[in-house]
Amino acid sequence: MRNGDLIDVVGFDADDTLWQCQDAFDAAEQLFFSVVEPYASDGVDLADALRSTELGNLAISGYGVKAFGLSMVEAAVTATGGSIPSRDIGILVDHIHDMLREPVKLLDGVADALHAVARTHRIVMITKGDLVHQTRKVRTSGLDHHFEHIKIVLEKDAETYASVLNEWGVDPRRFLMVGNSVRSDVLPVLELGGFGLHIPYHVTWDHEVVESPQHTFHTLDSISGVADWLAAEHS
Amino acid sequence: MRNGDLIDVVGFDADDTLWQCQDAFDAAEQLFFSVVEPYASDGVDLADALRSTELGNLAISGYGVKAFGLSMVEAAVTATGGSIPSRDIGILVDHIHDMLREPVKLLDGVADALHAVARTHRIVMITKGDLVHQTRKVRTSGLDHHFEHIKIVLEKDAETYASVLNEWGVDPRRFLMVGNSVRSDVLPVLELGGFGLHIPYHVTWDHEVVESPQHTFHTLDSISGVADWLAAEHS
Repeated sequence: MRNGDLIDVVGFDADDTLWQCQDAFDAAEQLFFSVVEPYASDGVDLADALRSTELGNLAISGYGVKAFGLSMVEAAVTATGGSIPSRDIGILVDHIHDMLREPVKLLDGVADALHAVARTHRIVMITKGDLVHQTRKVRTSGLDHHFEHIKIVLEKDAETYASVLNEWGVDPRRFLMVGNSVRSDVLPVLELGGFGLHIPYHVTWDHEVVESPQHTFHTLDSISGVADWLAAEHS
Repeated sequence: MRNGDLIDVVGFDADDTLWQCQDAFDAAEQLFFSVVEPYASDGVDLADALRSTELGNLAISGYGVKAFGLSMVEAAVTATGGSIPSRDIGILVDHIHDMLREPVKLLDGVADALHAVARTHRIVMITKGDLVHQTRKVRTSGLDHHFEHIKIVLEKDAETYASVLNEWGVDPRRFLMVGNSVRSDVLPVLELGGFGLHIPYHVTWDHEVVESPQHTFHTLDSISGVADWLAAEHS
């Protein structure tokens, strides 16, 4: 019996699994440093200031570009004691709006990989983030016809996966989740008795790094290998 | 035959139907005016500047407090030619984060009204806005146990209602939507052959005002009347 035969539905993460995401946040952070640095108060570590502002707002504003933008503005004001000119704040906000407008950049081989998996399995998308921005990315990706269901959630923990799969009538034990985050895409699904495939992206957000997980799971170099893994891997 | 007998499921809007919403945006707008006015460039109408910035960003950033906050910052910078100090921008952003933290304020009679309708009908919520903020409001409202389904959507048009009701297996012709917006809660559901009940709130957002609608529908003074309407109203 192959793993592929035990799996009815394959779920894909989106950000940094199907398309680029973290690179844009990293670029925005670099812009923040270069714009704010000339006015930074003595002894302030701008990276720390931005990160702690983000974390402080996470529970009320969530993940996503707009939440990041508001935290960037807050951090720019506090880290400079209000000495940064508002014109520079305007540069940061314009950049945030540009990020929201930016066309989605698919990762290599994604369209073919989904097509190949769709031949043998039902496909769904479960992704985290801002409703407007993620919906826009899905709609403009040209990929949405592959997905039987698309769900944008607040947090990708076992409870959320259980509830979403239940809503769709999918047995977690016959579900494979594919994504770049061990913490969000792999471990919670293993916890429910399902399957997880980790496809690392070259950048991983600080929050997403999991130290020495207690579970074992498979890792692939590229999404292009998912269909072959389903066909070939023995349990 | 009473209308109530023809209806299986009753949907409720949330913002300004179950709890206060627009008041907080109005208060934030007043804060914007008082903070920005001292630095406003000659001849600039601040209300126009804010509204046009909001509308310009609507397609990419959507409805909701975070989108409004980013537009407020953008408008503050452009309407003052960058002369507003960033400390004042900080006041605006802090206020936005306070809005996100604010406990939900239920409208009068809401809990009893839902309880009464739930005795005879299945209840769902369909609301627009930011995923994180709306989810937080639902969770802290103490009302979520009444709802069989809760859906947060980007736009409440006929297409969206059709898709959501289809996902839930609800016949639109046996569905009643209750809400404060004729444009978003009533007309699209009538278009699908369903029922709509309009419960006006004392403030209606500019975008939401519908001029001389071609449909007829019932209006109630208060959500407390919904159960009686279902029980008594004859078709």
